[in-house]
Amino acid sequence: MRAEDLILVSVDDHVVEPPDLFENHLPAKWLEYAPKNVHDDERDIDVWVYEGNVIPNIGLNAVAGRPPEEYNIEPTNYGMMRAGCYDIHERVNDMNRNGVLGSMCFPSFVQFCGQLFSRSTDKEMGLNLLRAYNDWHIDEWCGTYPGRFIPLSIPPIWDPQLMADEVRRVSKKGCHAVTFSENPYKLGWPHIFGDHWDPFFAACEDEGMVICLHIGSSSTMLEIAPGAPIDIMITLTPLNTMEAATDLLWSQVLRKFPNLQFALSEGGTGWLPYWLERIDYVYQQHRFWTSQDFGDKLPSQVAREHFTFCYISDRSGVDNRHAIGIDNITWECDYPHSDSSWPHSPESLTKQLEGVPDDEIDKMTHSNAMRIFRYDPFAHRPKDRATVAALRSEVRD
Amino acid sequence: MRAEDLILVSVDDHVVEPPDLFENHLPAKWLEYAPKNVHDDERDIDVWVYEGNVIPNIGLNAVAGRPPEEYNIEPTNYGMMRAGCYDIHERVNDMNRNGVLGSMCFPSFVQFCGQLFSRSTDKEMGLNLLRAYNDWHIDEWCGTYPGRFIPLSIPPIWDPQLMADEVRRVSKKGCHAVTFSENPYKLGWPHIFGDHWDPFFAACEDEGMVICLHIGSSSTMLEIAPGAPIDIMITLTPLNTMEAATDLLWSQVLRKFPNLQFALSEGGTGWLPYWLERIDYVYQQHRFWTSQDFGDKLPSQVAREHFTFCYISDRSGVDNRHAIGIDNITWECDYPHSDSSWPHSPESLTKQLEGVPDDEIDKMTHSNAMRIFRYDPFAHRPKDRATVAALRSEVRD
Repeated sequence: MRAEDLILVSVDDHVVEPPDLFENHLPAKWLEYAPKNVHDDERDIDVWVYEGNVIPNIGLNAVAGRPPEEYNIEPTNYGMMRAGCYDIHERVNDMNRNGVLGSMCFPSFVQFCGQLFSRSTDKEMGLNLLRAYNDWHIDEWCGTYPGRFIPLSIPPIWDPQLMADEVRRVSKKGCHAVTFSENPYKLGWPHIFGDHWDPFFAACEDEGMVICLHIGSSSTMLEIAPGAPIDIMITLTPLNTMEAATDLLWSQVLRKFPNLQFALSEGGTGWLPYWLERIDYVYQQHRFWTSQDFGDKLPSQVAREHFTFCYISDRSGVDNRHAIGIDNITWECDYPHSDSSWPHSPESLTKQLEGVPDDEIDKMTHSNAMRIFRYDPFAHRPKDRATVAALRSEVRD
Repeated sequence: MRAEDLILVSVDDHVVEPPDLFENHLPAKWLEYAPKNVHDDERDIDVWVYEGNVIPNIGLNAVAGRPPEEYNIEPTNYGMMRAGCYDIHERVNDMNRNGVLGSMCFPSFVQFCGQLFSRSTDKEMGLNLLRAYNDWHIDEWCGTYPGRFIPLSIPPIWDPQLMADEVRRVSKKGCHAVTFSENPYKLGWPHIFGDHWDPFFAACEDEGMVICLHIGSSSTMLEIAPGAPIDIMITLTPLNTMEAATDLLWSQVLRKFPNLQFALSEGGTGWLPYWLERIDYVYQQHRFWTSQDFGDKLPSQVAREHFTFCYISDRSGVDNRHAIGIDNITWECDYPHSDSSWPHSPESLTKQLEGVPDDEIDKMTHSNAMRIFRYDPFAHRPKDRATVAALRSEVRD
């Protein structure tokens, strides 16, 4: 398949929230409680301030368009970023430059599971702000370009019943994905081995809401020794995903909620043939003394029924796509982060996909994502030949 | 290749030390300081007692011959184990029953890096005992059946200069492998990112001594939440190896000691295509700000020059053997632990190796191990046609 024939839907990109995000989604009387974006003149950086706490941007979060020689992890300001990081019109332009049809965007300064709001002194106001955030994300960020985004909500993680309510609220607005933590226990919440999260999981199952676990959403990366090179941490981040998948698999969650769907975001895919084989081996060798029971299924089968995997650049995953499950693989661009292939994703993918039949390429690059996240680029337009041609030229040109 | 034509050399088995291990290797006057094996009548278990501390056996360490339905992790006694766990003659019989020509055996109650002796109140006596242990292992355990074992020494980990001395001492006795910790920092020793271990590494490089990092040799498994199913820990143990390899790769160790060899014991192989690809990607994307420099090599190339991998049962590793490096893969039996394929290793391997050319099977099942560990089954016998036939029938019958 030629680079220009790829149809790309990215299930993991990131939005750097614009300074005015709360303005259109909160009553004026509550605006004073919302996080404010201010410029720190001394350090020449832009920061968010919420309830007296200062949250800087991290440079590696927004390096799209810069050569690797220029990356660093210093905080930064809006002027140093590509406008596509925070401006929806420029974002769509950057998607078009990279031939990307659809995109799901994770939050930045509010953290992956909206943890910022869980630290609000007034939790009721925290919930108001979180809902305003979701409304901004769904109606304004994604809503400005109907058909170009897969909306993704954040949950009020401090209360599973409120989480369930918010899942139901955003579902009515057409949002079918929600973030959660790869390990809530590490965030200080109960772990997934009891029934604490059941109201949330039940609501997600009812509404067909995909739960997205992004690497780093436990707010902890793998611990490395003081003085250890940071490359170790970067290399091993996908292990967070392997741990999260393993936790879920052996917990009761997947058996209690047989239709629940999880997307393992930015976890890569190349480790999966090994992991899927390993869980079956552990089950066969140890199930009798550990009392695990998956009925007439193997653990690998249960994993494939519940998990969607995704990759940026992962030749070993492509080579082993059938050992992984061709219907379980999606693609991500990771714009504007430092691991992203933007703006050369189609060229980089074409090279990695050499020798793969077209129908399998279609699954991995867009049709799996469209099915799993119920994403329909034509939902807001007539799906006729002229529209398809227009959309194609919009994305390509 | 038929099961009966496989030549098997296992680079990871385990010895449950026999009660009389110190008797022939310590002067009589020092025997009182040595660990003693005693029977706890009340619990009907055999334990080691050293300086007042009690060290039980763990059941899963010695379940060879039992069906998975009967495993448990309760302590046990010699009478409950197969004699092959601790009796050298029965061990060789069990190797013959499984068609295994050669075996490298890791220690049990003294821990993987001989940590037991690092806790001695009198470190000088600790060193005497550790040397006696190595002499027992090399001269008695391995020496009773010349050509059937790859000797493996333990290091006095509390002093890198003593470690170097012991490496040189056992090297003269024909021992070319030594255990070390996958993460000494977790054991309370300095990490590998400074120069603390350099005398040890230098001696190993000089003597061509392979450093074996066994999973669990950091005395810590992956941390799991209280109440989490233990299957999670079993599934994720190979991550210890991935972490150890990643630490070594980005540290200066491999670049400072370009001929140093590490064996990653019981770490599996199926995750390697992904990991090898990942380290190159991290290098390409991040090297400029992390200041990593491998000269004209890629990290994956450096890894293949220094690391030997091994697997028990790992179809994804076999399928991806060329992405891993066909010269870097060895096989292990893991006798008598619960993950072992004993006594059906040839049958289980033949199934996994279907479609693999004979010369590649030979590399993975024995010739890589023979080259890397300088193991020669004919070192003590004339290598003529009659001896080969005799050895073959010895192992097979």
